[in-house]
Amino acid sequence: MALTYREAYQVPFYESDVNQNMKLPQLLSLALQISGKHSLKLGVSDDVIFNKYNLVWIITEYDIEIDRLPKYAETIEIETEAIAYNKLFCYRDFRIFGQDGQQIMTIHSTFVLMDFDTRKVHTVVDDIVKVYECEKIKKIIRGPRYSQLDNPTETLYHVRFFDLDMNGHVNNSKYLEWMYESLEYDFLLCHVPKKIQLKYIKEVAPTSQVSSRLVTTALHSQHEIVVEGHIHAQATIEWRERDDAR
Amino acid sequence: MALTYREAYQVPFYESDVNQNMKLPQLLSLALQISGKHSLKLGVSDDVIFNKYNLVWIITEYDIEIDRLPKYAETIEIETEAIAYNKLFCYRDFRIFGQDGQQIMTIHSTFVLMDFDTRKVHTVVDDIVKVYECEKIKKIIRGPRYSQLDNPTETLYHVRFFDLDMNGHVNNSKYLEWMYESLEYDFLLCHVPKKIQLKYIKEVAPTSQVSSRLVTTALHSQHEIVVEGHIHAQATIEWRERDDAR
Repeated sequence: MALTYREAYQVPFYESDVNQNMKLPQLLSLALQISGKHSLKLGVSDDVIFNKYNLVWIITEYDIEIDRLPKYAETIEIETEAIAYNKLFCYRDFRIFGQDGQQIMTIHSTFVLMDFDTRKVHTVVDDIVKVYECEKIKKIIRGPRYSQLDNPTETLYHVRFFDLDMNGHVNNSKYLEWMYESLEYDFLLCHVPKKIQLKYIKEVAPTSQVSSRLVTTALHSQHEIVVEGHIHAQATIEWRERDDAR
Repeated sequence: MALTYREAYQVPFYESDVNQNMKLPQLLSLALQISGKHSLKLGVSDDVIFNKYNLVWIITEYDIEIDRLPKYAETIEIETEAIAYNKLFCYRDFRIFGQDGQQIMTIHSTFVLMDFDTRKVHTVVDDIVKVYECEKIKKIIRGPRYSQLDNPTETLYHVRFFDLDMNGHVNNSKYLEWMYESLEYDFLLCHVPKKIQLKYIKEVAPTSQVSSRLVTTALHSQHEIVVEGHIHAQATIEWRERDDAR
Protein backbone atom coordinates (compact mmCIF):
# COMPACT_ATOMS: atom_id res chain seq x y z
CA MET A 1 0.00 0.00 0.00
CA ALA A 2 1.20 3.49 -0.88
CA LEU A 3 1.51 6.41 1.53
CA THR A 4 -1.76 8.05 2.47
CA TYR A 5 -2.55 11.60 3.49
CA ARG A 6 -5.56 12.57 5.52
CA GLU A 7 -7.28 15.80 6.56
CA ALA A 8 -10.42 16.73 8.44
CA TYR A 9 -12.83 19.29 7.03
CA GLN A 10 -16.01 20.84 8.37
CA VAL A 11 -18.61 21.52 5.68
CA PRO A 12 -19.44 25.24 5.75
CA PHE A 13 -22.87 26.79 5.15
CA TYR A 14 -21.89 28.23 1.78
CA GLU A 15 -20.82 24.83 0.42
CA SER A 16 -24.14 23.22 1.39
CA ASP A 17 -27.08 22.88 -0.98
CA VAL A 18 -30.76 23.36 -0.33
CA ASN A 19 -30.96 19.74 0.93
CA GLN A 20 -28.13 20.34 3.43
CA ASN A 21 -25.78 18.17 1.38
CA MET A 22 -22.29 19.34 0.49
CA LYS A 23 -22.18 20.64 -3.09
CA LEU A 24 -20.34 17.99 -5.09
CA PRO A 25 -18.33 20.40 -7.29
CA GLN A 26 -16.95 21.93 -4.07
CA LEU A 27 -16.03 18.50 -2.77
CA LEU A 28 -14.09 17.71 -5.95
CA SER A 29 -12.19 20.99 -5.59
CA LEU A 30 -11.44 20.22 -1.97
CA ALA A 31 -10.19 16.73 -2.85
CA LEU A 32 -7.81 18.22 -5.40
CA GLN A 33 -6.57 20.70 -2.83
CA ILE A 34 -5.84 17.83 -0.45
CA SER A 35 -3.93 15.87 -3.08
CA GLY A 36 -1.93 19.07 -3.60
CA LYS A 37 -1.09 19.16 0.10
CA HIS A 38 -0.11 15.50 -0.01
CA SER A 39 2.34 16.31 -2.81
CA LEU A 40 3.64 19.40 -1.01
CA LYS A 41 4.35 17.34 2.10
CA LEU A 42 6.35 14.87 0.01
CA GLY A 43 8.41 17.62 -1.67
CA VAL A 44 6.77 17.40 -5.10
CA SER A 45 4.36 20.35 -4.98
CA ASP A 46 2.80 21.79 -8.13
CA ASP A 47 5.37 24.61 -7.97
CA VAL A 48 8.27 22.17 -7.82
CA ILE A 49 7.20 20.08 -10.79
CA PHE A 50 6.37 23.19 -12.79
CA ASN A 51 9.71 24.86 -12.08
CA LYS A 52 11.80 21.71 -12.48
CA TYR A 53 9.99 19.95 -15.35
CA ASN A 54 7.59 22.55 -16.87
CA LEU A 55 4.82 20.02 -16.14
CA VAL A 56 1.37 20.38 -14.58
CA TRP A 57 -1.06 17.75 -13.29
CA ILE A 58 -4.30 17.38 -15.24
CA ILE A 59 -7.30 15.29 -14.22
CA THR A 60 -8.62 13.13 -17.05
CA GLU A 61 -11.22 10.93 -15.34
CA TYR A 62 -13.33 10.50 -12.25
CA ASP A 63 -15.24 7.45 -11.07
CA ILE A 64 -17.19 8.41 -7.98
CA GLU A 65 -19.13 6.05 -5.71
CA ILE A 66 -21.49 7.73 -3.29
CA ASP A 67 -23.26 6.06 -0.36
CA ARG A 68 -24.22 9.47 0.90
CA LEU A 69 -22.96 13.03 0.54
CA PRO A 70 -21.37 14.92 3.45
CA LYS A 71 -23.91 17.06 5.33
CA TYR A 72 -23.82 20.70 6.38
CA ALA A 73 -21.57 21.25 9.46
CA GLU A 74 -20.43 17.61 9.43
CA THR A 75 -16.73 17.11 10.08
CA ILE A 76 -15.57 14.69 7.42
CA GLU A 77 -12.17 13.10 6.90
CA ILE A 78 -10.68 12.93 3.43
CA GLU A 79 -7.98 10.36 2.86
CA THR A 80 -6.02 10.21 -0.37
CA GLU A 81 -3.64 7.66 -1.78
CA ALA A 82 -1.71 7.55 -5.06
CA ILE A 83 -2.68 3.98 -5.92
CA ALA A 84 -0.58 3.13 -8.97
CA TYR A 85 0.84 4.49 -12.20
CA ASN A 86 1.85 3.32 -15.66
CA LYS A 87 3.67 4.99 -18.54
CA LEU A 88 1.04 7.72 -19.01
CA PHE A 89 -1.51 7.63 -16.21
CA CYS A 90 -1.45 8.05 -12.44
CA TYR A 91 -4.33 6.68 -10.37
CA ARG A 92 -5.31 8.34 -7.12
CA ASP A 93 -8.16 7.45 -4.76
CA PHE A 94 -9.93 9.67 -2.28
CA ARG A 95 -11.92 8.10 0.53
CA ILE A 96 -14.43 10.28 2.35
CA PHE A 97 -15.39 9.33 5.91
CA GLY A 98 -18.43 10.71 7.71
CA GLN A 99 -18.35 12.10 11.22
CA ASP A 100 -19.26 8.62 12.55
CA GLY A 101 -16.11 7.17 10.95
CA GLN A 102 -18.00 5.26 8.24
CA GLN A 103 -16.74 5.57 4.68
CA ILE A 104 -19.42 7.41 2.69
CA MET A 105 -17.73 8.01 -0.67
CA THR A 106 -14.87 6.86 -2.87
CA ILE A 107 -13.45 9.01 -5.65
CA HIS A 108 -11.22 7.17 -8.11
CA SER A 109 -9.29 9.64 -10.25
CA THR A 110 -6.89 9.50 -13.16
CA PHE A 111 -4.20 12.13 -13.64
CA VAL A 112 -1.70 12.82 -16.38
CA LEU A 113 1.27 15.16 -16.52
CA MET A 114 0.96 17.83 -19.21
CA ASP A 115 3.74 19.95 -20.66
CA PHE A 116 2.72 23.51 -19.84
CA ASP A 117 3.88 24.98 -23.18
CA THR A 118 2.91 22.30 -25.69
CA ARG A 119 -0.31 21.37 -23.74
CA LYS A 120 0.56 17.74 -24.63
CA VAL A 121 0.54 14.76 -22.29
CA HIS A 122 4.01 13.85 -21.00
CA THR A 123 5.13 10.38 -19.93
CA VAL A 124 5.12 9.90 -16.17
CA VAL A 125 8.40 11.00 -14.57
CA ASP A 126 9.56 8.33 -12.10
CA ASP A 127 11.33 10.92 -9.95
CA ILE A 128 8.05 12.74 -9.38
CA VAL A 129 5.92 9.74 -8.47
CA LYS A 130 8.38 7.55 -6.56
CA VAL A 131 7.86 9.59 -3.36
CA TYR A 132 4.26 8.36 -3.10
CA GLU A 133 5.60 4.77 -2.81
CA CYS A 134 2.96 3.54 -5.22
CA GLU A 135 3.17 0.62 -7.59
CA LYS A 136 4.20 0.91 -11.26
CA ILE A 137 1.80 -1.21 -13.33
CA LYS A 138 1.55 -2.13 -17.00
CA LYS A 139 -2.22 -2.18 -17.09
CA ILE A 140 -4.23 0.81 -18.25
CA ILE A 141 -7.35 1.23 -16.13
CA ARG A 142 -10.05 2.25 -18.56
CA GLY A 143 -13.24 4.13 -17.82
CA PRO A 144 -16.48 3.36 -19.65
CA ARG A 145 -16.90 3.89 -23.34
CA TYR A 146 -19.12 6.88 -23.92
CA SER A 147 -21.19 6.72 -27.08
CA GLN A 148 -22.18 10.02 -28.66
CA LEU A 149 -25.56 11.21 -27.40
CA ASP A 150 -28.55 10.69 -29.65
CA ASN A 151 -30.95 13.61 -29.87
CA PRO A 152 -29.94 15.27 -26.59
CA THR A 153 -31.56 18.33 -24.99
CA GLU A 154 -29.22 21.32 -24.88
CA THR A 155 -28.71 24.01 -22.26
CA LEU A 156 -26.36 26.88 -23.10
CA TYR A 157 -23.87 28.51 -20.74
CA HIS A 158 -21.54 31.42 -21.22
CA VAL A 159 -18.19 30.90 -19.45
CA ARG A 160 -17.95 33.35 -16.53
CA PHE A 161 -14.86 35.15 -15.22
CA PHE A 162 -15.19 33.29 -11.90
CA ASP A 163 -15.44 29.91 -13.70
CA LEU A 164 -11.76 30.24 -14.58
CA ASP A 165 -8.87 29.22 -12.42
CA MET A 166 -5.28 30.38 -12.37
CA ASN A 167 -4.47 28.24 -15.40
CA GLY A 168 -6.71 30.52 -17.46
CA HIS A 169 -9.16 27.73 -18.30
CA VAL A 170 -12.47 26.68 -16.81
CA ASN A 171 -12.00 24.91 -13.49
CA ASN A 172 -12.72 21.15 -13.57
CA SER A 173 -15.52 21.44 -11.04
CA LYS A 174 -17.58 23.71 -13.34
CA TYR A 175 -18.17 20.95 -15.91
CA LEU A 176 -20.06 18.98 -13.30
CA GLU A 177 -22.06 22.07 -12.40
CA TRP A 178 -23.11 22.53 -16.05
CA MET A 179 -24.11 18.85 -16.16
CA TYR A 180 -26.19 19.17 -13.00
CA GLU A 181 -27.86 22.36 -14.19
CA SER A 182 -29.09 20.71 -17.39
CA LEU A 183 -31.42 18.64 -15.17
CA GLU A 184 -34.68 20.02 -13.82
CA TYR A 185 -34.69 21.79 -10.45
CA ASP A 186 -37.42 19.47 -9.16
CA PHE A 187 -35.36 16.41 -10.08
CA LEU A 188 -32.26 17.74 -8.26
CA LEU A 189 -34.39 18.54 -5.23
CA CYS A 190 -35.50 14.91 -4.86
CA HIS A 191 -32.50 12.91 -6.09
CA VAL A 192 -28.87 12.43 -5.16
CA PRO A 193 -26.11 10.89 -7.28
CA LYS A 194 -25.08 7.28 -6.58
CA LYS A 195 -22.33 6.85 -9.14
CA ILE A 196 -20.66 9.36 -11.44
CA GLN A 197 -18.26 8.62 -14.27
CA LEU A 198 -16.75 11.70 -15.84
CA LYS A 199 -14.13 12.07 -18.55
CA TYR A 200 -12.34 15.32 -19.38
CA ILE A 201 -11.25 15.57 -23.00
CA LYS A 202 -10.36 19.16 -23.68
CA GLU A 203 -9.98 22.41 -21.72
CA VAL A 204 -12.65 25.11 -22.05
CA ALA A 205 -11.30 28.59 -22.80
CA PRO A 206 -12.49 31.95 -21.41
CA THR A 207 -15.59 33.56 -22.96
CA SER A 208 -16.62 30.27 -24.65
CA GLN A 209 -20.25 29.43 -25.33
CA VAL A 210 -20.84 26.00 -23.79
CA SER A 211 -23.60 23.53 -24.57
CA SER A 212 -24.52 21.06 -21.83
CA ARG A 213 -26.15 18.13 -23.64
CA LEU A 214 -28.34 15.66 -21.81
CA VAL A 215 -30.14 12.37 -22.33
CA THR A 216 -32.05 10.88 -19.40
CA THR A 217 -33.82 7.63 -18.63
CA ALA A 218 -35.47 7.35 -15.20
CA LEU A 219 -32.52 7.25 -12.75
CA HIS A 220 -29.73 7.56 -15.28
CA SER A 221 -28.38 10.64 -17.04
CA GLN A 222 -25.80 10.97 -19.80
CA HIS A 223 -23.96 14.23 -20.38
CA GLU A 224 -21.74 15.96 -22.89
CA ILE A 225 -20.07 19.35 -22.62
CA VAL A 226 -19.68 20.71 -26.13
CA VAL A 227 -17.96 23.86 -27.42
CA GLU A 228 -18.17 24.75 -31.11
CA GLY A 229 -19.19 21.22 -32.04
CA HIS A 230 -16.34 19.54 -30.13
CA ILE A 231 -16.93 17.34 -27.08
CA HIS A 232 -14.91 18.62 -24.09
CA ALA A 233 -16.25 16.24 -21.45
CA GLN A 234 -18.57 13.24 -21.13
CA ALA A 235 -20.27 11.72 -18.13
CA THR A 236 -22.88 9.30 -16.91
CA ILE A 237 -24.63 9.68 -13.58
CA GLU A 238 -26.73 7.12 -11.73
CA TRP A 239 -29.22 8.74 -9.37
CA ARG A 240 -31.32 7.54 -6.46
CA GLU A 241 -34.26 9.13 -4.71
CA ARG A 242 -33.34 10.94 -1.52
CA ASP A 243 -34.04 8.90 1.60
CA ASP A 244 -34.92 12.11 3.37
CA ALA A 245 -36.90 13.65 0.48
CA ARG A 246 -39.77 15.84 1.46
CA MET B 1 -14.65 48.50 21.79
CA ALA B 2 -16.70 45.32 21.40
CA LEU B 3 -15.35 41.78 21.51
CA THR B 4 -13.51 40.67 18.40
CA TYR B 5 -13.06 37.25 16.86
CA ARG B 6 -10.19 36.34 14.55
CA GLU B 7 -9.30 33.41 12.32
CA ALA B 8 -6.54 32.62 9.87
CA TYR B 9 -7.32 31.27 6.41
CA GLN B 10 -5.14 30.12 3.56
CA VAL B 11 -6.56 30.97 0.13
CA PRO B 12 -6.98 27.71 -1.83
CA PHE B 13 -6.41 27.24 -5.56
CA TYR B 14 -10.10 26.85 -6.31
CA GLU B 15 -10.99 30.19 -4.71
CA SER B 16 -8.38 32.07 -6.75
CA ASP B 17 -9.16 33.82 -10.02
CA VAL B 18 -7.14 33.98 -13.21
CA ASN B 19 -5.15 36.92 -11.74
CA GLN B 20 -4.28 34.90 -8.62
CA ASN B 21 -6.60 37.06 -6.51
CA MET B 22 -9.11 35.52 -4.12
CA LYS B 23 -12.59 35.50 -5.66
CA LEU B 24 -14.52 38.19 -3.83
CA PRO B 25 -17.85 36.29 -3.62
CA GLN B 26 -15.94 33.49 -1.84
CA LEU B 27 -14.42 36.00 0.57
CA LEU B 28 -17.86 37.37 1.47
CA SER B 29 -19.08 33.82 2.16
CA LEU B 30 -16.03 33.13 4.29
CA ALA B 31 -16.56 36.35 6.27
CA LEU B 32 -20.14 35.32 7.01
CA GLN B 33 -18.94 31.91 8.13
CA ILE B 34 -16.52 33.58 10.53
CA SER B 35 -19.21 35.84 11.99
CA GLY B 36 -21.22 32.63 12.50
CA LYS B 37 -18.32 31.13 14.45
CA HIS B 38 -18.03 34.31 16.51
CA SER B 39 -21.71 33.96 17.45
CA LEU B 40 -21.34 30.24 18.16
CA LYS B 41 -18.46 30.94 20.53
CA LEU B 42 -20.60 33.47 22.42
CA GLY B 43 -23.53 31.05 22.75
CA VAL B 44 -25.82 32.77 20.22
CA SER B 45 -25.36 30.57 17.17
CA ASP B 46 -27.80 30.64 14.24
CA ASP B 47 -29.36 27.44 15.62
CA VAL B 48 -29.90 28.98 19.04
CA ILE B 49 -31.60 32.14 17.80
CA PHE B 50 -33.71 30.13 15.36
CA ASN B 51 -34.85 27.63 17.99
CA LYS B 52 -35.38 30.18 20.73
CA TYR B 53 -36.76 33.15 18.78
CA ASN B 54 -37.66 31.82 15.28
CA LEU B 55 -35.30 34.49 13.92
CA VAL B 56 -32.57 34.39 11.28
CA TRP B 57 -29.82 36.90 10.47
CA ILE B 58 -30.09 38.61 7.09
CA ILE B 59 -27.48 40.84 5.47
CA THR B 60 -28.92 44.06 4.08
CA GLU B 61 -25.84 46.07 3.10
CA TYR B 62 -22.12 45.89 2.44
CA ASP B 63 -19.63 48.71 2.16
CA ILE B 64 -16.28 47.23 1.17
CA GLU B 65 -12.95 49.06 1.02
CA ILE B 66 -10.19 47.23 -0.80
CA ASP B 67 -6.52 48.17 -0.80
CA ARG B 68 -5.75 44.84 -2.37
CA LEU B 69 -7.39 41.42 -2.58
CA PRO B 70 -5.91 38.37 -0.83
CA LYS B 71 -3.64 36.34 -3.14
CA TYR B 72 -3.57 32.63 -3.94
CA ALA B 73 -1.93 30.60 -1.12
CA GLU B 74 -1.65 33.69 1.10
CA THR B 75 -2.52 33.12 4.75
CA ILE B 76 -4.80 35.97 5.67
CA GLU B 77 -6.35 36.84 9.02
CA ILE B 78 -10.00 37.84 9.23
CA GLU B 79 -11.06 39.78 12.27
CA THR B 80 -14.70 40.57 12.95
CA GLU B 81 -16.38 42.86 15.42
CA ALA B 82 -20.05 43.64 16.06
CA ILE B 83 -19.61 47.41 16.12
CA ALA B 84 -22.99 48.74 17.22
CA TYR B 85 -26.73 48.27 16.93
CA ASN B 86 -29.93 50.28 17.04
CA LYS B 87 -33.60 49.33 17.12
CA LEU B 88 -33.51 47.54 13.75
CA PHE B 89 -29.96 47.26 12.48
CA CYS B 90 -26.76 45.59 13.64
CA TYR B 91 -23.43 46.79 12.28
CA ARG B 92 -20.53 44.39 11.94
CA ASP B 93 -17.05 45.04 10.52
CA PHE B 94 -14.61 42.56 9.06
CA ARG B 95 -10.95 43.50 8.78
CA ILE B 96 -8.77 41.44 6.47
CA PHE B 97 -5.03 41.33 7.13
CA GLY B 98 -2.48 40.14 4.60
CA GLN B 99 0.28 37.68 5.38
CA ASP B 100 2.59 40.61 6.19
CA GLY B 101 0.19 41.78 8.91
CA GLN B 102 -0.98 44.86 6.97
CA GLN B 103 -4.71 45.51 6.79
CA ILE B 104 -5.74 45.07 3.14
CA MET B 105 -9.55 45.27 3.28
CA THR B 106 -12.44 46.44 5.45
CA ILE B 107 -15.95 45.09 5.04
CA HIS B 108 -18.65 47.10 6.79
CA SER B 109 -21.88 45.12 6.95
CA THR B 110 -25.43 45.70 8.13
CA PHE B 111 -27.56 42.85 9.46
CA VAL B 112 -31.18 42.60 10.51
CA LEU B 113 -33.05 39.85 12.30
CA MET B 114 -35.90 38.39 10.23
CA ASP B 115 -38.80 36.30 11.47
CA PHE B 116 -38.45 32.99 9.67
CA ASP B 117 -42.20 32.52 9.08
CA THR B 118 -43.41 36.03 8.28
CA ARG B 119 -40.15 36.94 6.42
CA LYS B 120 -40.47 40.37 8.07
CA VAL B 121 -37.76 42.33 9.85
CA HIS B 122 -37.87 41.95 13.64
CA THR B 123 -36.63 44.53 16.15
CA VAL B 124 -33.21 43.70 17.56
CA VAL B 125 -33.43 41.46 20.62
CA ASP B 126 -31.16 42.82 23.38
CA ASP B 127 -30.58 39.34 24.80
CA ILE B 128 -29.12 38.21 21.49
CA VAL B 129 -26.75 41.11 20.92
CA LYS B 130 -25.59 41.93 24.46
CA VAL B 131 -23.02 39.10 24.39
CA TYR B 132 -21.02 40.93 21.71
CA GLU B 133 -20.52 43.81 24.19
CA CYS B 134 -21.28 46.33 21.47
CA GLU B 135 -22.80 49.75 21.82
CA LYS B 136 -26.49 50.50 21.40
CA ILE B 137 -26.86 53.66 19.33
CA LYS B 138 -29.78 55.79 18.17
CA LYS B 139 -28.27 56.70 14.83
CA ILE B 140 -29.09 54.78 11.67
CA ILE B 141 -25.99 54.39 9.50
CA ARG B 142 -27.23 54.86 5.97
CA GLY B 143 -25.67 53.60 2.77
CA PRO B 144 -25.73 55.62 -0.44
CA ARG B 145 -28.95 56.46 -2.23
CA TYR B 146 -29.15 54.39 -5.36
CA SER B 147 -31.03 56.06 -8.21
CA GLN B 148 -32.73 53.80 -10.73
CA LEU B 149 -30.46 53.03 -13.67
CA ASP B 150 -31.06 54.93 -16.87
CA ASN B 151 -30.89 52.88 -20.05
CA PRO B 152 -28.78 50.00 -18.62
CA THR B 153 -27.40 47.04 -20.53
CA GLU B 154 -28.94 43.73 -19.44
CA THR B 155 -27.44 40.28 -19.00
CA LEU B 156 -29.80 37.42 -18.20
CA TYR B 157 -29.13 34.57 -15.76
CA HIS B 158 -31.18 31.57 -14.83
CA VAL B 159 -30.91 30.71 -11.13
CA ARG B 160 -28.99 27.44 -10.73
CA PHE B 161 -29.54 24.66 -8.20
CA PHE B 162 -26.08 25.32 -6.76
CA ASP B 163 -26.81 29.07 -6.44
CA LEU B 164 -29.21 28.27 -3.60
CA ASP B 165 -28.29 27.84 0.01
CA MET B 166 -30.02 25.96 2.80
CA ASN B 167 -32.56 28.77 3.21
CA GLY B 168 -33.92 27.86 -0.22
CA HIS B 169 -33.01 31.24 -1.72
CA VAL B 170 -30.09 32.43 -3.76
CA ASN B 171 -26.96 32.83 -1.66
CA ASN B 172 -25.89 36.45 -1.06
CA SER B 173 -22.56 35.95 -2.75
CA LYS B 174 -24.21 35.11 -6.09
CA TYR B 175 -25.62 38.62 -6.56
CA LEU B 176 -22.09 39.98 -6.69
CA GLU B 177 -21.13 37.27 -9.18
CA TRP B 178 -24.00 38.31 -11.49
CA MET B 179 -22.87 41.94 -11.17
CA TYR B 180 -19.28 41.06 -12.05
CA GLU B 181 -20.32 38.90 -14.99
CA SER B 182 -22.26 41.75 -16.59
CA LEU B 183 -18.87 43.42 -17.20
CA GLU B 184 -16.62 42.42 -20.07
CA TYR B 185 -14.04 39.68 -19.54
CA ASP B 186 -11.24 41.97 -20.74
CA PHE B 187 -12.25 44.62 -18.21
CA LEU B 188 -12.24 42.12 -15.32
CA LEU B 189 -8.86 40.84 -16.44
CA CYS B 190 -7.26 44.27 -16.07
CA HIS B 191 -9.17 45.86 -13.17
CA VAL B 192 -9.78 45.19 -9.50
CA PRO B 193 -12.46 46.71 -7.26
CA LYS B 194 -11.48 49.54 -4.92
CA LYS B 195 -14.79 50.19 -3.22
CA ILE B 196 -18.07 48.29 -3.37
CA GLN B 197 -21.42 49.40 -1.95
CA LEU B 198 -24.12 46.76 -2.19
CA LYS B 199 -27.69 46.75 -0.92
CA TYR B 200 -29.89 43.65 -0.72
CA ILE B 201 -33.58 44.42 -1.05
CA LYS B 202 -35.36 41.15 -1.70
CA GLU B 203 -34.50 37.44 -1.79
CA VAL B 204 -34.26 35.67 -5.17
CA ALA B 205 -36.27 32.44 -5.41
CA PRO B 206 -35.29 29.16 -7.12
CA THR B 207 -35.68 28.89 -10.91
CA SER B 208 -36.02 32.69 -11.29
CA GLN B 209 -34.89 34.49 -14.41
CA VAL B 210 -32.53 37.24 -13.27
CA SER B 211 -31.51 40.37 -15.13
CA SER B 212 -28.16 41.90 -14.19
CA ARG B 213 -28.43 45.57 -15.23
CA LEU B 214 -25.35 47.70 -15.72
CA VAL B 215 -24.32 51.28 -16.39
CA THR B 216 -20.61 52.08 -16.58
CA THR B 217 -18.48 55.21 -16.79
CA ALA B 218 -14.70 54.65 -16.99
CA LEU B 219 -13.76 53.30 -13.54
CA HIS B 220 -17.24 53.23 -12.02
CA SER B 221 -20.02 50.70 -12.48
CA GLN B 222 -23.63 50.75 -11.25
CA HIS B 223 -25.63 47.55 -10.93
CA GLU B 224 -29.16 46.32 -10.40
CA ILE B 225 -30.37 42.77 -9.96
CA VAL B 226 -33.91 42.61 -11.27
CA VAL B 227 -36.48 39.79 -11.23
CA GLU B 228 -39.82 40.26 -12.97
CA GLY B 229 -39.45 44.03 -12.98
CA HIS B 230 -38.58 44.30 -9.26
CA ILE B 231 -35.17 45.40 -8.02
CA HIS B 232 -33.68 42.78 -5.66
CA ALA B 233 -30.26 44.37 -5.17
CA GLN B 234 -28.34 47.51 -6.10
CA ALA B 235 -24.64 48.27 -6.08
CA THR B 236 -21.94 50.66 -7.15
CA ILE B 237 -18.36 49.59 -7.69
CA GLU B 238 -15.27 51.77 -8.06
CA TRP B 239 -12.50 50.05 -9.98
CA ARG B 240 -8.81 50.63 -10.47
CA GLU B 241 -6.37 49.26 -12.98
CA ARG B 242 -4.37 46.31 -11.70
CA ASP B 243 -0.87 47.31 -10.59
CA ASP B 244 0.37 43.97 -11.85
CA ALA B 245 -1.68 43.97 -15.09
CA ARG B 246 -0.09 42.30 -18.03
